[in-house]
Amino acid sequence: MTLTILFAAGANRWPLWESPLRRALHQAGIAADLVTEAAPEAVDVMIYAPGGDTPADFTPYTRCKAVLSLWAGVERIVGNQTLTQPLCRMVDPGLTQGMVEYVVGHALRAHLGVDALSQTRWAPKIPPLAAERPVAMLGLGALGAACGEALACLGFPVLGWSRTAKDVPMIECHHGREGLRMVLEQAQIVVTLLPATPATENILNAETLSWLPEGATIINPGRGTLIDDDALLAALDAGRVGSATLDVFRTEPLPQGHPYWAHPRVTVTPHIAADTRPSTAATVIAENVRRLRDGEPLLHCVDRSAGY
Amino acid sequence: MTLTILFAAGANRWPLWESPLRRALHQAGIAADLVTEAAPEAVDVMIYAPGGDTPADFTPYTRCKAVLSLWAGVERIVGNQTLTQPLCRMVDPGLTQGMVEYVVGHALRAHLGVDALSQTRWAPKIPPLAAERPVAMLGLGALGAACGEALACLGFPVLGWSRTAKDVPMIECHHGREGLRMVLEQAQIVVTLLPATPATENILNAETLSWLPEGATIINPGRGTLIDDDALLAALDAGRVGSATLDVFRTEPLPQGHPYWAHPRVTVTPHIAADTRPSTAATVIAENVRRLRDGEPLLHCVDRSAGY
Repeated sequence: MTLTILFAAGANRWPLWESPLRRALHQAGIAADLVTEAAPEAVDVMIYAPGGDTPADFTPYTRCKAVLSLWAGVERIVGNQTLTQPLCRMVDPGLTQGMVEYVVGHALRAHLGVDALSQTRWAPKIPPLAAERPVAMLGLGALGAACGEALACLGFPVLGWSRTAKDVPMIECHHGREGLRMVLEQAQIVVTLLPATPATENILNAETLSWLPEGATIINPGRGTLIDDDALLAALDAGRVGSATLDVFRTEPLPQGHPYWAHPRVTVTPHIAADTRPSTAATVIAENVRRLRDGEPLLHCVDRSAGY
Repeated sequence: MTLTILFAAGANRWPLWESPLRRALHQAGIAADLVTEAAPEAVDVMIYAPGGDTPADFTPYTRCKAVLSLWAGVERIVGNQTLTQPLCRMVDPGLTQGMVEYVVGHALRAHLGVDALSQTRWAPKIPPLAAERPVAMLGLGALGAACGEALACLGFPVLGWSRTAKDVPMIECHHGREGLRMVLEQAQIVVTLLPATPATENILNAETLSWLPEGATIINPGRGTLIDDDALLAALDAGRVGSATLDVFRTEPLPQGHPYWAHPRVTVTPHIAADTRPSTAATVIAENVRRLRDGEPLLHCVDRSAGY
């Protein structure tokens, strides 16, 4: 049986994805008609990314058995009431690897004091070892766990926090409101890798930022909504927060004139911390199509009630 | 028997070292008279660092059975013809860890393109994954091996080079002149962690720099003599070398007015890549004193003919 797979992830992404997807589907032994247009009632599987030509109303897709997201974050689609099919997030090993490189690189940049290096004067100052620099990892999903483990391998003590109790190797795990306070009170570097949900909105706010030791560094490669921007700017100006490296924002591109652009202790990166890599992600898509065909449980299914 | 141990490593270092050394000697069960002054013929062991009050002539130290360096690099003392006792280098786990943090941090900084990030404009550009960015590690001693392994753990392909053939886990090892060319021709990031010897002087020169792919990054936390400074500046200006992060120099502090200070693609760090950490290094010193007392082979003995 040939499956009709609709690529509804944007015409601009199609050239990047067509070959890797065809190759991965072929390697998985799947007979597929991979298309960018199809009659809704003919579609068996939909590949999705935000900002594409995704339907606002999924009702006509009567045969569609799953929507497979190319992105890890699904907040723009998870609330769509017409979407009744299983929705799967992307957990791409290439994306995870890119995120690990970004988080470890910017954590070490803060740790080594790279931005404060004088380029006019010989002024030796030996930074403490990583072992003396606790890192808080907010979010212990696939990305948070991988980044936390990489930081722990380099010697950083890693304190993890998640909404519900978790147990992750090499990370001292905490959860709940009291756990958040315990983690932030010790953290010299805070990495936010939580999903965007009503429960995580503004999790870094005036109160929680006040728990941090003076001069802490914030690294947010997660979602823009995790941070109360006004509170962060106030904490930076008060010295409570020493520096921030931000990759995600409530409005993207970050508007010209936003105070983050000009702030001397804020580094803006343009949502590049982790991108899905077609070569590795196509294999994940093909595996889920195969599972669907063979009646096996899908990987990385979204829990609609939790929102991720 | 109480050993007389002379701390000949500079009066300015004594306050940092006295407590850790007394503690480590005590824990090793050594009865020692640790002093900063003694009659030469009374000294059993000398603790040494450059720039201290080290004797220029070791001849009067007739009883001294070993000179234990607080530094990994011993080029300022190894050629002293009056020094006939065993000379031991410092291989400090704290120093190694600090070096790993420096090398991984600056390699990731180059890899992620941190210096090229626009802080005025949203201009997304996804860097390649570490797996697509070969690193050359010149020098596979304790420091080079540890840094190479940490980079390999993060996904970088690591090509190692050493004077003589070596076999280091996770590193593709090469040696000799042909090996150097093979390694440099592939390297997008070059880390120099060779000892300073006549054989390694100017190992990065006009010819060897010409073997690099365009835009490569040089990271030198090893020794200033490894690089022909004029050749590096020319390669930077020609675009052959994209950037350089230099921690060590022929003259330190790096003189005001040196072209490295003002070069837009050179980062100067003031010899901070790795410092001996008294708490961990004192344990290594005490262990060598114990070995000396018990007639066991000393750790990290310098091979005078090789110079390290």
